[in-house]
Amino acid sequence: MSRVLIINGPNLNLLGIRKKEHYGSETLEDINLFIKEYFDNTGILFDFFQSNSEGEIIDKIHKSLDTKIDYIVINPGALTHYSYSIRDAIEAVRIPTVEVHLSNIHARENFRGKSVIAPVCIGQISGLRKFGYIYAINALKEKKDINGGK
Amino acid sequence: MSRVLIINGPNLNLLGIRKKEHYGSETLEDINLFIKEYFDNTGILFDFFQSNSEGEIIDKIHKSLDTKIDYIVINPGALTHYSYSIRDAIEAVRIPTVEVHLSNIHARENFRGKSVIAPVCIGQISGLRKFGYIYAINALKEKKDINGGK
Amino acid sequence: MSRVLIINGPNLNLLGIRKKEHYGSETLEDINLFIKEYFDNTGILFDFFQSNSEGEIIDKIHKSLDTKIDYIVINPGALTHYSYSIRDAIEAVRIPTVEVHLSNIHARENFRGKSVIAPVCIGQISGLRKFGYIYAINALKEKKDINGGK
Amino acid sequence: MSRVLIINGPNLNLLGIRKKEHYGSETLEDINLFIKEYFDNTGILFDFFQSNSEGEIIDKIHKSLDTKIDYIVINPGALTHYSYSIRDAIEAVRIPTVEVHLSNIHARENFRGKSVIAPVCIGQISGLRKFGYIYAINALKEKKDINGGK
Amino acid sequence: MSRVLIINGPNLNLLGIRKKEHYGSETLEDINLFIKEYFDNTGILFDFFQSNSEGEIIDKIHKSLDTKIDYIVINPGALTHYSYSIRDAIEAVRIPTVEVHLSNIHARENFRGKSVIAPVCIGQISGLRKFGYIYAINALKEKKDINGGK
Amino acid sequence: MSRVLIINGPNLNLLGIRKKEHYGSETLEDINLFIKEYFDNTGILFDFFQSNSEGEIIDKIHKSLDTKIDYIVINPGALTHYSYSIRDAIEAVRIPTVEVHLSNIHARENFRGKSVIAPVCIGQISGLRKFGYIYAINALKEKKDINGGK
Amino acid sequence: MSRVLIINGPNLNLLGIRKKEHYGSETLEDINLFIKEYFDNTGILFDFFQSNSEGEIIDKIHKSLDTKIDYIVINPGALTHYSYSIRDAIEAVRIPTVEVHLSNIHARENFRGKSVIAPVCIGQISGLRKFGYIYAINALKEKKDINGGK
Amino acid sequence: MSRVLIINGPNLNLLGIRKKEHYGSETLEDINLFIKEYFDNTGILFDFFQSNSEGEIIDKIHKSLDTKIDYIVINPGALTHYSYSIRDAIEAVRIPTVEVHLSNIHARENFRGKSVIAPVCIGQISGLRKFGYIYAINALKEKKDINGGK
Amino acid sequence: MSRVLIINGPNLNLLGIRKKEHYGSETLEDINLFIKEYFDNTGILFDFFQSNSEGEIIDKIHKSLDTKIDYIVINPGALTHYSYSIRDAIEAVRIPTVEVHLSNIHARENFRGKSVIAPVCIGQISGLRKFGYIYAINALKEKKDINGGK
Amino acid sequence: MSRVLIINGPNLNLLGIRKKEHYGSETLEDINLFIKEYFDNTGILFDFFQSNSEGEIIDKIHKSLDTKIDYIVINPGALTHYSYSIRDAIEAVRIPTVEVHLSNIHARENFRGKSVIAPVCIGQISGLRKFGYIYAINALKEKKDINGGK
Amino acid sequence: MSRVLIINGPNLNLLGIRKKEHYGSETLEDINLFIKEYFDNTGILFDFFQSNSEGEIIDKIHKSLDTKIDYIVINPGALTHYSYSIRDAIEAVRIPTVEVHLSNIHARENFRGKSVIAPVCIGQISGLRKFGYIYAINALKEKKDINGGK
Amino acid sequence: MSRVLIINGPNLNLLGIRKKEHYGSETLEDINLFIKEYFDNTGILFDFFQSNSEGEIIDKIHKSLDTKIDYIVINPGALTHYSYSIRDAIEAVRIPTVEVHLSNIHARENFRGKSVIAPVCIGQISGLRKFGYIYAINALKEKKDINGGK
Repeated sequence: MSRVLIINGPNLNLLGIRKKEHYGSETLEDINLFIKEYFDNTGILFDFFQSNSEGEIIDKIHKSLDTKIDYIVINPGALTHYSYSIRDAIEAVRIPTVEVHLSNIHARENFRGKSVIAPVCIGQISGLRKFGYIYAINALKEKKDINGGK
Repeated sequence: MSRVLIINGPNLNLLGIRKKEHYGSETLEDINLFIKEYFDNTGILFDFFQSNSEGEIIDKIHKSLDTKIDYIVINPGALTHYSYSIRDAIEAVRIPTVEVHLSNIHARENFRGKSVIAPVCIGQISGLRKFGYIYAINALKEKKDINGGK
Repeated sequence: MSRVLIINGPNLNLLGIRKKEHYGSETLEDINLFIKEYFDNTGILFDFFQSNSEGEIIDKIHKSLDTKIDYIVINPGALTHYSYSIRDAIEAVRIPTVEVHLSNIHARENFRGKSVIAPVCIGQISGLRKFGYIYAINALKEKKDINGGK
Repeated sequence: MSRVLIINGPNLNLLGIRKKEHYGSETLEDINLFIKEYFDNTGILFDFFQSNSEGEIIDKIHKSLDTKIDYIVINPGALTHYSYSIRDAIEAVRIPTVEVHLSNIHARENFRGKSVIAPVCIGQISGLRKFGYIYAINALKEKKDINGGK
Repeated sequence: MSRVLIINGPNLNLLGIRKKEHYGSETLEDINLFIKEYFDNTGILFDFFQSNSEGEIIDKIHKSLDTKIDYIVINPGALTHYSYSIRDAIEAVRIPTVEVHLSNIHARENFRGKSVIAPVCIGQISGLRKFGYIYAINALKEKKDINGGK
Repeated sequence: MSRVLIINGPNLNLLGIRKKEHYGSETLEDINLFIKEYFDNTGILFDFFQSNSEGEIIDKIHKSLDTKIDYIVINPGALTHYSYSIRDAIEAVRIPTVEVHLSNIHARENFRGKSVIAPVCIGQISGLRKFGYIYAINALKEKKDINGGK
Repeated sequence: MSRVLIINGPNLNLLGIRKKEHYGSETLEDINLFIKEYFDNTGILFDFFQSNSEGEIIDKIHKSLDTKIDYIVINPGALTHYSYSIRDAIEAVRIPTVEVHLSNIHARENFRGKSVIAPVCIGQISGLRKFGYIYAINALKEKKDINGGK
Repeated sequence: MSRVLIINGPNLNLLGIRKKEHYGSETLEDINLFIKEYFDNTGILFDFFQSNSEGEIIDKIHKSLDTKIDYIVINPGALTHYSYSIRDAIEAVRIPTVEVHLSNIHARENFRGKSVIAPVCIGQISGLRKFGYIYAINALKEKKDINGGK
Repeated sequence: MSRVLIINGPNLNLLGIRKKEHYGSETLEDINLFIKEYFDNTGILFDFFQSNSEGEIIDKIHKSLDTKIDYIVINPGALTHYSYSIRDAIEAVRIPTVEVHLSNIHARENFRGKSVIAPVCIGQISGLRKFGYIYAINALKEKKDINGGK
Repeated sequence: MSRVLIINGPNLNLLGIRKKEHYGSETLEDINLFIKEYFDNTGILFDFFQSNSEGEIIDKIHKSLDTKIDYIVINPGALTHYSYSIRDAIEAVRIPTVEVHLSNIHARENFRGKSVIAPVCIGQISGLRKFGYIYAINALKEKKDINGGK
Repeated sequence: MSRVLIINGPNLNLLGIRKKEHYGSETLEDINLFIKEYFDNTGILFDFFQSNSEGEIIDKIHKSLDTKIDYIVINPGALTHYSYSIRDAIEAVRIPTVEVHLSNIHARENFRGKSVIAPVCIGQISGLRKFGYIYAINALKEKKDINGGK
Repeated sequence: MSRVLIINGPNLNLLGIRKKEHYGSETLEDINLFIKEYFDNTGILFDFFQSNSEGEIIDKIHKSLDTKIDYIVINPGALTHYSYSIRDAIEAVRIPTVEVHLSNIHARENFRGKSVIAPVCIGQISGLRKFGYIYAINALKEKKDINGGK
């Protein structure tokens, strides 16, 4: 059994509510449900968390030490591009983390191409929509294998 | 049934032969076999291609028009960082493509953080090792859903 | 009748209390009162909001969907220069917004010259002190005309 | 009674004639008339000036010393981005000036985001179309108040 | 008697808990106790504050006006590198402040070398670990002397 | 007993003689005396050195190998910003060193914000005037503790 | 029959008079005559214009709306590198334009490599001397074909 | 009689096959035929060459020494932006060369605006579609005249 | 006997009229008179020219070929920083020129430190106020000697 | 006995054939002969390789694992400045390599000053013409000594 | 009577000895003699100083406080471009200083265009050869007038 | 017979004394002896010079004119990266010079990759340890051949 924390950052609570033509009509709740059902019977316990506040996200990451979180999947929203504080939080707790973006951040405005958080993650998935979360979780489960190399 | 072209760029033929402590001991052949077995019985026809030559990679991408390739998964190796020609090839053939990197390119030398090819792909997966290819293929299969949004 | 949300970001609660020689002796409350009285009998309902927290400002912007806000006037304070998250919030809710700065941000330190939020607003007013808010509201009321062109 | 000089720079004489879908169908003359009527009976004497020549604009700014101009409103067009000479002219005559742009210069090409003239103005209004001129004039009339702070 | 506010920013609550080989095994509580004991009988009243939220830190800085704080010592964590809002807060309250970093920020990643907050502080201490706080407080006590020159 | 070398670079010999309103009226000799008296009876042997020549400063750093210097405190003056040679000297002798600046280098001209020497020091103190030297020495004395981490 | 406006910017009136070893001994008049004779009997009416003044060039571009100019060929001289105002003029009148340079601007000083005007033209010809004008006119005549693609 | 080598780089073999709405429906073969017919009876012998490989293009340029090529017209495709090796090849063989681009490279993505090859060519033509090749050949035929000046 | 053209660019006609505390109370006419009297009886014929228009300045430089001007002294005002057209004019006429600035352009805003015109002049004098013109003329008279070396 | 692979990149096959005044009249064959004779009777087996294709060079580097190459000397030509793929190849095979340039790349165009390959080599020799190869081989033979330090 | 210190920096002792075709055949001694004779009978006492050492130049500048130097003329040679220490020395002693360069530094390599010393001088003269020193001295003598404005 | 000056810059006197694991255990004296013995009986007279002072190195370079030095080999240490004054000295004396670095400067910190001195040398050798000096001397002896080109 493993515990996975799914963190969604600023504005992701509006998924499916606004800008549907850009992000589709599924809400964040829909996506979370989709994740949960996808991993039904795999023994993964999920903790879904969304916040528009950098501070709350950092608090949540810290608390994962107490709640024995094994893996973190994070979509930091626009905080991706400047939150060195979230970067430090992930680096500090040392829980394997994968960064996920719904859209292809390399195909949008210039500033979106750079993540200050990815360098302390195991990897980054961008542009694969809700499946990005699935793959991130799978990758973390395969982590032993991944850790075979650096 | 769908046809998937897996392209590996410069130096990926050395996987498992050199720098094992960095990339693990699996060879590219091992990875290709792993991919094939993973998608056994799914009706996917694979075309595995590796080349150290930018020109041959572009030729191969062009030929995928004749061979009715449905999806491309590409790990362009170091060409990622300067081959605007491969970028143009992918953009020209208009076959849905996902860029994959075995290691987390955002955690290495500065120059590796920027892909000139990713902007014309559907997405990018980095750092999830051989599983990156699996997820890329899965994502392309889910493409209808992915296409629901931009 | 229309509903207008006035958002003031970090440190604007200190207006009239500190740095009076720079920003004048009127408090934020004075300015809000001034705005309210200026638009007395025009049928505008105001929601005045100040916070030093990026997250709370984003939450407030989101809530304006529920509270049927028609227009937003925002003075993001120093968040102007790095809060891509607030930018995304404004872009997501699609409520016409004008960015206002009391002082002329183009005449101060270099870093103040660039707004990461203005590109998703209808416009920006800088340096016209409390009147900036008045003009922003007027402009939003004239929006139909403004929308005549792009 | 006060005298206000309204300066419009290069290409603004084409307003309403070309690119109507972008700037609307009102001509510069229409806008000037609108301004004049708006301030009818307020005792403001207007001097409307348009030129495509940087030199003529500087000459006009200088002459405002003789013609006892109290305030200047300037839309420098594309000269905004490189005319350090107009900047010096405004700084030299020390007549309170507000810079106005019809469209939101922060939402267009990169080079339009930077004004070399705004640092010597009282403020800048961008994106509020013809109303920008009205607000600029109002702000200059309120100048005593504006001057209360720096 | 003087009142000193000690502010520690994001992730400093994990001191001594994680990354011990990097920051040592003392917790933030240990350090606070050490400070308190060091200044025992000197008539300094301490207010220790830690938060992972930029907004809360700004609120706390503002409140120091009411609580008659004489000096502030701040270790802004990674907010050092982008929080222009905290910078503005310190500049606004005009309480003498010293910036402290446990590790030598000039010997780590490039982005850590630049503080956007230091320019509005009296000074900066970096790399002297917990003693940095002690020296900062001492320096603020000696402030009269420090103020002799600019 | 320990031996401490205090190095002051270019122009620091003019302290208290010129620009008194900026740096106060104490001469470098006054400061050295202050340091000596402060550490009276602590068993520290001081070697005070000032030079306007980069070469002489490097020579002095080298000689500290022969003279069994335990710690170095260096205020490199404007050499801070370009003397990669002094950086190499400090790195080569491997004597624990703290960089000190009387004024807050982060609050002055842009070029003063960057030290090419600090990356090879234990830490940097800036803006705390003559007390900076005292704290640097104290920190070096506490070095065992400092070395506990990093 | 079509009307073509040939605009030559600053200093091109000195062609053949100064720097002959660089630009050859033909005067601008010689070149204009050459153009005219080349297109003799093709039904093209030419309007040759040279000015050292940015403002006059903009005026001329505007007037081409009244004079029913079909195509513009422009050699903006050194204005190429900074005249965003001429760029806006060409974009506004929407008359198909080709930018021409006698010498190869990519083989000279760095600043000459960048044209701020070319992005709003159909194309650019550089280094082909007087023939550049001929080709530009021919290209504009072939415009229908050119317009076949974007 | 003169011999002209026409080189087309990566992806130009897809002309008329893909992205027709962007580049028109003519294939590269069509264009080559068009060129050949245009210069029918002029005594020019053409050598048409297309390759997606930088190395083959360089080989071809070298061989033009043996095959007595008089002029080269090259459309390097995306190699334009990084192939310093092709640049060196052209500079080495010293055969007069003109660089051609079908589309206006100055009106597309930023990276396309810079050619590393143009500085060693006689000139560059951009945006005039298939006619660009015609003009390039004409210009090279007029070369004596062009060579009159530098 | 020699002929000297003295060119003053934008805003220099306001000398002594505005910003007296910055540039002194002498008018441009005063300075011209001062120059004339200084070189009384030296056989120098002066042509004093001021314009706020780049185009007129270029025209004037060109005309100096007809009027047999031997030397030019130019204070281009703010055109110094962007007028590549004036640069080209000076380079084209090949009349020895010295650039003069009343104030020390290296001690003001960043953008004033760079002259795009100085590279084609014999030299530059900055900060020596009206005497700069005198020295420039003297230097040009000594030109034979100056030309001794490059 | 040791095996040495000498790789020459793009355009080096033209040595002694073109640009003789720049690179001398010796052909690459002459140089290879010179190298061979220089090391006659030293038991070194040489493998001389030249290619204009990045891909072929990478292939050759890989094959040196099979052919038991002990050392590589590479002159990558202009690929020096952008071939991250060759860099990766050298890093992957881990055969000690020295980079050689005939001319002094630091004394030519700006872009030639930077090698993306040198960081993974043992060292770089530039400007010493054919002797550079000799010294590179000697250095590799002395490698044990070289390896004494890092 | 006034005392003038003439400082010449690195390599200026080679004037007239090496690179005569560039700097002429006059030695530094010749120039100094020329200066002395030029100001014969004007009551100026000269102190001529040349050194290749930054430290000695700073020492000399400091000593000018004791020797009652009224004015300094300095040609810092290549130290112009990086010696922030000499800049600080000049700023500290507050003796009016003019920077002189024999050649036009704006017409040479890029790095020579920027002086880190000029911002603390009264002005800069460049390109007027030995006369530059004469004009600098004259300007300093006229200093009262110069000081009239800022 | 020829005379060779070997110059070693700052900190190279510490070779073999400090950082042995990085640079090996040979002292500078050992290396000098090695050089001398290597060229025993070749008729070369060596002048070995080390200094930590830029000024003394320049003086030494100048004196090589008097001492009839034929060639210079220089390892400028960290002065490599900023001493434009040493660059000018080498350029001025026109004695053929080769720059040598013991370690591979391209594989260390970013700032070490750029030499401001190499552009005026014949060539640069980096990373070949003490043998670099040997090769540099050999190359200078072969200089006639080297001079055959360029």
